[in-house]
Amino acid sequence: MSKYSVKFLPNDISVDVEEGTTIAEASHQADVFISNLCGGEGVCGKCRIQISRGRAEAEEHAKGLFSQDEIMKGYVLACQTEVHDNLEVIIPPESRVDESQILTGAAEGEPLLANDNPIVRKIYLELPPPTPEDNAPDVERISRVLTKETGSRFVDFPLDCLQHLSDRLRENEWKITVTLSRDRNNYRILQIDPLNTAGSNYGVAVDVGTTTVVTQLVDINSRKVIGVKGTHNNQASYGEDVISRMIFACGKGGMDPMQKAVVKNINQLIGKLAKDNNISVEEINSIVAAGNTTMSHFLLGLTPCSIRLDPYVPTARNFPQIRAEQIGIHINPRGRLETLPGVASYVGGDIIAGVLASGIAEHEEVRGLIDIGTNGEIAIGNRDWLVCCSASAGPAFEGGGTRCGMRARTGAIEKIEISGSGLKYETIGNAKPIGICGSGLIACIYELVKNEVIGPDGKFHRTRKDDRVAIEDNIPQYIIAHANETETGADVVITETDIDNLIKSKGAVFAAIKSLLDYIDLGFDQIETFYVAGGFGNFLDVPKSIAIGLLPDLPHEKIQFIGNSSLTGARMCLLSEKAFENCTNIASSMTNIELSTYQPFTDDYIAALFLPHTDRKLFPSVEY
Amino acid sequence: MSKYSVKFLPNDISVDVEEGTTIAEASHQADVFISNLCGGEGVCGKCRIQISRGRAEAEEHAKGLFSQDEIMKGYVLACQTEVHDNLEVIIPPESRVDESQILTGAAEGEPLLANDNPIVRKIYLELPPPTPEDNAPDVERISRVLTKETGSRFVDFPLDCLQHLSDRLRENEWKITVTLSRDRNNYRILQIDPLNTAGSNYGVAVDVGTTTVVTQLVDINSRKVIGVKGTHNNQASYGEDVISRMIFACGKGGMDPMQKAVVKNINQLIGKLAKDNNISVEEINSIVAAGNTTMSHFLLGLTPCSIRLDPYVPTARNFPQIRAEQIGIHINPRGRLETLPGVASYVGGDIIAGVLASGIAEHEEVRGLIDIGTNGEIAIGNRDWLVCCSASAGPAFEGGGTRCGMRARTGAIEKIEISGSGLKYETIGNAKPIGICGSGLIACIYELVKNEVIGPDGKFHRTRKDDRVAIEDNIPQYIIAHANETETGADVVITETDIDNLIKSKGAVFAAIKSLLDYIDLGFDQIETFYVAGGFGNFLDVPKSIAIGLLPDLPHEKIQFIGNSSLTGARMCLLSEKAFENCTNIASSMTNIELSTYQPFTDDYIAALFLPHTDRKLFPSVEY
Repeated sequence: MSKYSVKFLPNDISVDVEEGTTIAEASHQADVFISNLCGGEGVCGKCRIQISRGRAEAEEHAKGLFSQDEIMKGYVLACQTEVHDNLEVIIPPESRVDESQILTGAAEGEPLLANDNPIVRKIYLELPPPTPEDNAPDVERISRVLTKETGSRFVDFPLDCLQHLSDRLRENEWKITVTLSRDRNNYRILQIDPLNTAGSNYGVAVDVGTTTVVTQLVDINSRKVIGVKGTHNNQASYGEDVISRMIFACGKGGMDPMQKAVVKNINQLIGKLAKDNNISVEEINSIVAAGNTTMSHFLLGLTPCSIRLDPYVPTARNFPQIRAEQIGIHINPRGRLETLPGVASYVGGDIIAGVLASGIAEHEEVRGLIDIGTNGEIAIGNRDWLVCCSASAGPAFEGGGTRCGMRARTGAIEKIEISGSGLKYETIGNAKPIGICGSGLIACIYELVKNEVIGPDGKFHRTRKDDRVAIEDNIPQYIIAHANETETGADVVITETDIDNLIKSKGAVFAAIKSLLDYIDLGFDQIETFYVAGGFGNFLDVPKSIAIGLLPDLPHEKIQFIGNSSLTGARMCLLSEKAFENCTNIASSMTNIELSTYQPFTDDYIAALFLPHTDRKLFPSVEY
Repeated sequence: MSKYSVKFLPNDISVDVEEGTTIAEASHQADVFISNLCGGEGVCGKCRIQISRGRAEAEEHAKGLFSQDEIMKGYVLACQTEVHDNLEVIIPPESRVDESQILTGAAEGEPLLANDNPIVRKIYLELPPPTPEDNAPDVERISRVLTKETGSRFVDFPLDCLQHLSDRLRENEWKITVTLSRDRNNYRILQIDPLNTAGSNYGVAVDVGTTTVVTQLVDINSRKVIGVKGTHNNQASYGEDVISRMIFACGKGGMDPMQKAVVKNINQLIGKLAKDNNISVEEINSIVAAGNTTMSHFLLGLTPCSIRLDPYVPTARNFPQIRAEQIGIHINPRGRLETLPGVASYVGGDIIAGVLASGIAEHEEVRGLIDIGTNGEIAIGNRDWLVCCSASAGPAFEGGGTRCGMRARTGAIEKIEISGSGLKYETIGNAKPIGICGSGLIACIYELVKNEVIGPDGKFHRTRKDDRVAIEDNIPQYIIAHANETETGADVVITETDIDNLIKSKGAVFAAIKSLLDYIDLGFDQIETFYVAGGFGNFLDVPKSIAIGLLPDLPHEKIQFIGNSSLTGARMCLLSEKAFENCTNIASSMTNIELSTYQPFTDDYIAALFLPHTDRKLFPSVEY
C-alpha cells in the first residue's frame, strides 16, 4: 500500500500515512488536533480544513456544509476526507484546538513521568520456579515482583484469581500476565492470564455530557487514541436539561430508565469503537468517565434528588471505583470504571477534568476555566489554590427560553451581520433557516446594539423606524429571516423578551466570573489565560462575546478554547495514576463558592444586566 | 423461673443461672472452662465433672460413659446435665482447660484494648442534617464520623450502599446503622441500615480440622460465646488424612466436592447455632476460620496440589478476606470471611491461632506450642522471635498404622496398667473393647517397657516367658484383651511392628522439638511452658508421654493443655482487629525450619528411636 505525507499548517508538522487514511486519523498520528464534536461522523462540521497543496475531494454528502466559495478554496471535513496524495493542510482558526497545552500533553506520545502508570496495566512475568531454598507460596512469587512494581505492600488477589493459580503457573512454565488496577491506595489484581497477553490492553475515556456522550478508545500500551465516537445522550427523552431529568428520575421508577439510557449510549459507542478497531470489548480493561455531578449520579445509579433542593447536597463527590459490569457496561467483566470526582452539586467531574487537562493547578500564574452551558461553571487558581463556582445561566445560549432558539444543527442561523446594506446571515449546512443557535444569538444582540436597534438595556428604541422591527402582543421583535426564506414558513425573530433572557444568561456567567475574582481579590488583568471549555466554547466569537459582556474584556489571545476538556481529562486519568491522584487532589482542595447565598454575586448580577455592563470601565475595548 | 447458684471448684467461681440451664452453659457464663470436643453433643465424654454438693443426675444415655463407681461419686457430663438445685461442681483435672491464660483471656468479658474493635462492627449514627453552611455530600457526613472511628482516611463505600443512601438518610431523619469491616488497612462499609440495628451483630469462629469442624457463635457486642457446635469433617469420605484428600482433590473434578463437603459442614453447624439461639443467619456478619494450610486451601477452593510435592509450595499463606457467600457459606450475603494466615505448607493458620491464643508471642520468656496429629507441629519463641517446624508423625497416635489402633470413641481401650497381679484396661464408655486409641497405645508401650516385656529398642525380650506374648507370622505381639472379652471376638493386640511405628511417630515429634531447640541454641530447661494443643492433647497422660519419649522430660506443671487453641485464636480475631493483625505479624515473622532438608533432624530422629531415647540424660526422671 502506498504511503503519502500530510503536512499540517500552521503547526508545520508532517506525518506519513497509508493511502486511504482520513485526514482526521492522520492528525491523530501527528499529534495535531482538529476540532471535532460528533466523533468523526461527518455531521457537526467542526473539523473543517483547507487543502492548500495536493488533491483531495470532499465527500459528496459533506459538501452541503460548505459555501461554493469554500469548496473552490479546497475546504473539506478532515474526518470525511481520505488521503490519496501528498497533502498540505491548513487548519483554519475555527478548527484549531491545538493552542492549549492540554491536547498535546503527556497523554499521547510523550514519555511517561517516572513511576507513572495507567490505572489498569498488564504486566508479563516470567517467575523463577520454586526450589527447596525458596519455596514461598505461589502468591508471594507474584507479590514480590508486584510490590516492586507498585511500591505498595498490599496487592489484593481476588479469590477467583487464586483458585486455579497453582495449576496455571505450572502448566505455563511460570509465565503469566497479570492485569493490575489501582484503586486509591490499593493495587488489585483483576486477572491472571497464561503466557504473555500484555500487548492487548485498551481503555475508554467517556465524557458523559447532558447533551452528548463522547467516548475515546485508547491503546493503553502505545498511549494513542485509536478511535473516538460521540452521540446524543439518550436521557434527553426524559428531559432536556439536568433539572427536568432529576425531576423525572425522582419520580416513581424514574432512576432505572435514566441510568439505563446513558449506559446504552456508552455500550453502543464502545461496541462501535471495538468493531472499527477490530478488538473485542473484553480487551478493554478500564473506563474513566467524567460528567457533571448529576450525570455522574445517573451513571452510577445514585439517587440525585437532593442535588436540586436547597442546600444542594449530592450523595457523593468522590465515587467508588467499580467493576464496569456492575452498572451494565460491557467490557472485560473484571474491568474497572472510575468516575472522576467533583467539588459540589453544580461543579462536577467534568470541570475537574478540565482543570486537570488545562494544567491550571500546575503553574504559578493564575488561570481560569469557563464552561458555559445551562450552568456556567468557573474555576480559577494556580498550583497553590483553587476556587470555583457555578451560576445558573438558563438555557438561552443552548436554544431554550428564546422564541426561535435552537441547538447548533443544520438550519440554525449561526452568523448575523447588519450593516448599511442590510442584514446577512449564515446557517449551519447553508440550509434554509429554522431558528437561531447560541452563536447566532450572541451575534444578533451584538449587531442590534451596534446598529442602535436596541439600547444597552436590551430594550428596543421605540421611536426608531426599522422595517425589520415588528410588535406582537405589545412586545417588539426583530425579524432576522422572513417567512418566505425559512424552512418553517414562519419568521425567524428575536424578541425583547428573548434579549432579556439572554442578558440574564450572560449576566449570570459574567457576574459569576467577577464575583469569584473579587472573592479572591484579583482583577481580570491578573488572569494569565481564560480557557473556554465545552462544545459551546468552540462556537463562540470572542470579540462579540466580549462586546455583549459575556466574556471579560481581555486581550483575545488570553482567551483559549480547549474543546472537550472533560474527555481529555478523563483520558489523562486512564493513562496515569498520578493524573487521577491529581484530580482527587484538585477536587478536594478546590473551594466552592455557593453563589446563591453569596450577596456580592447578586449585586454583580444586577450590574451585569446591561450591554456590555453598567460599569463601562470593565469593557474599555467595546466601542458602542 | 427459679434461679440457682452453681459454684465451680477448684476455680471457686460462682454464677447464678436460670433453672434448666446446663452446667456447661453455666460454666460459659462464669467464664470457667471445661474440656469439650464434640461441641456439647454428649458424645465425646470430655466434659466429665463431679457434683460435690446439690442434686443433679446424669442423663440416662450419658451414664454409659461412667463406671458404676463414678456414677456413685456424682460424675456427670456438664453438657448433658441441667441445673435444678444449687450446685457445687468439681472439675476434675482431666476436664480442666482453665489453667492457661488463653481461655480466660480478653476474648470474653474483659474490657477491650483501647482502639480495638471486632473485624466487623456496627455503628449507630445520628447525623446532623445538611445546612447551607455545611452542605457536604451525604457520603462525607458519614465518612467524617467513620474516619474518626477508624483513624483511617479511606473508607470504601460499595456502590449498592450509595445508590439509595440519599433517600434512606432523609426518610429516617439521618439515623442509620453502618456495618463496617476491616480488611488489612482498609475499612469497608458492608451495609447501611435505617435507624438503630447495632444491637444485632454476630460472628462465627470456625476450626476447620482434618477430623472435626467446630464452630462457635459469638455475640459481637457482648463478646460472649453463645453457642458451640462440632461435627466430623465431611471430607473424610474422600480420604482420612490430608495427603489422601489432596490426591483425591487433584484428580479430575476432585476439588469441587472437597470444598463443598466442608462448606456443608459449616452451613449445618451455623444453621443449628442460629436456630438454637433464635437468631437469623443473616445477623451473622463475620466468620474467622482457622485450619491447616491444606484445609484452608480446600475451604477457599484453592488447588492444593503442589503442597504435597517437593518443595512443598502452597498457593498462598495469606488469604484474601472474602464475602462468605463467595464460597457458599450462608450468613449475611455481605458478611465477610477471614481465613487465618499460615507460615508454610505444613504449618498453617491453626498453629498461628494457637500461638496467638497461647500468648507465646507476647512475653519475654520463651514458650512452645506442640500440636500432635498426623503431623506434629511445633512453634517456639517469645515476643522477639518465633520459629516453627512440622514433622510427619504418621497416623499411629490417631489409630492408623497399628493393627488394633482406632480413634478415641466408645470401645477404645484408653487406659492400661500391668502389674504383678496382671493387666487392667479401661475402655471409653466402659464398652467391650474394640481396639486401642492413642492414649491407650502410649500407656501400653509404657507398661510394656516398665514390665520388661519389651526393651528400650521396642523389641520383645524373646527369651522371656509371658502368657500374653504370642508370635504370629514370626512377629511377636502382646495380647491386651482376649477374643472372648472383645466386641469383635478377636484379640486386641499390639505387635512389634505397631510398636516400631509408634516409636517412629514419637521419635519424629520429639526430634522435631529437639531440632528446633538446637536450631535456636536453647535447652529444654529454658522453655517456660510447653502448651499442648489440639483434641489429642487433652487425652495425653503427661508422665507416660514423657516416659516413652514423646514429650520432653520437664516438670509436669510446665506442660499445659490448651484444648482447641485453633478455635480460640479464630474467636479472638473475630473480636479484635488487633488480634488479627497480630496473627498476620506472627505468621510473617515466624521462621519455618524445613525438617526434610535439615540434617540435624535426621540425626535427632534416629537418636529418638529408642524408649525413651538413646541419650538417657535427656530423660533424667524416667525410671526404667
